Amino acid sequence: MRRPSLDFYYEFSSPYSYLSAVRIGPLAEAAGVHVTWKPFLLGPIFAELGYSSSPFVDVPLKGEHMWRDVQRLAVHYGLPDVVRPDFFPLNTLLAARVALHLNDASRPGFTVAAFKALFAKGRDISDREVVRQVLAGLGHYCDHVIDAAETAENKAALKARVEEARAAGVFGAPTFITDDGELFWGNDRLEMAIAHAAAGGATAAKAS
Amino acid sequence: MRRPSLDFYYEFSSPYSYLSAVRIGPLAEAAGVHVTWKPFLLGPIFAELGYSSSPFVDVPLKGEHMWRDVQRLAVHYGLPDVVRPDFFPLNTLLAARVALHLNDASRPGFTVAAFKALFAKGRDISDREVVRQVLAGLGHYCDHVIDAAETAENKAALKARVEEARAAGVFGAPTFITDDGELFWGNDRLEMAIAHAAAGGATAAKAS
Repeated sequence: MRRPSLDFYYEFSSPYSYLSAVRIGPLAEAAGVHVTWKPFLLGPIFAELGYSSSPFVDVPLKGEHMWRDVQRLAVHYGLPDVVRPDFFPLNTLLAARVALHLNDASRPGFTVAAFKALFAKGRDISDREVVRQVLAGLGHYCDHVIDAAETAENKAALKARVEEARAAGVFGAPTFITDDGELFWGNDRLEMAIAHAAAGGATAAKAS
Repeated sequence: MRRPSLDFYYEFSSPYSYLSAVRIGPLAEAAGVHVTWKPFLLGPIFAELGYSSSPFVDVPLKGEHMWRDVQRLAVHYGLPDVVRPDFFPLNTLLAARVALHLNDASRPGFTVAAFKALFAKGRDISDREVVRQVLAGLGHYCDHVIDAAETAENKAALKARVEEARAAGVFGAPTFITDDGELFWGNDRLEMAIAHAAAGGATAAKAS
């Protein structure tokens, strides 16, 4: 029998994607679920949905609550205090291109390290030098990786990934999609998505 | 020592408010937390935030996911299948006025019954006759209650409640606020809000 799998769509500027990225590995491993890490860009999708920016930026009360909520969850999960970047929202194009370019074995490590650099250490990962340092810290030949991430081919691959996300019905991040097409939106649904994947869809609510 | 308490702001058209209304009683009781049930109207608050309607209506993909999510949660909680009303969103003015008019002993029972009528039985609680039947089913003199709910005094009290919610920073429903002013938005935070209230604020994440 094929191992159940879960598509994990994440955007580097999303604090809730961070909370899922640092948790999904052990949770999925324990449940025997394979995770396919899918970096993408939320900007083009938000634009199509008619958002002028993130709802967390457009509605300040919602944004204030989001940061407070993320910090409470970090305490709840035993993570370091969350740093609220003063450069938020930020351009995550380079980080997403690098994550996409890396192979399946390296992508999770870079993803978690880049998220931690941003939300646990307050480093601006829209800055090429910061991305270089994250890569170097993981033992990558950083200039080589960044050059390869910025080829026309890899840029096109990221555009294709955004289209793939849009076609799959993704409208926010993080989003989890199981083999049977069940879509779960938000860090709050990580556990439910993994349970659904592990059960091969058997835990699915019947269609309402 | 005063018993810890939790303000529970809910809107009758909100499926996530329904999921909290049917769960909060036993959870709070077990934790020794007193719940203050606060019906309000989200419409005026959404209007001020610049929403033309609910985000679940404005962004169809988000709305579709919401109904699927609510059904999955209903299965998870052991609740009946959720009925997706074809008259959604609906006018909840009368239901909110009745809930506000009832006394503290009767408000939870009416609230839960009205939510179940809407989301478990698919009945249109914007219809006065349906509200009458919900009241009658609980043993109330329904015409007397509805008349009292529609006095100028009670209408003004509901407007004041909306202002109170706005002043407290409420931007969505359900919202939970503890004695120390910590605000938790969404059914997903019910357990965390109760734990925070029960601990007298001691579980609070430090301010980020």
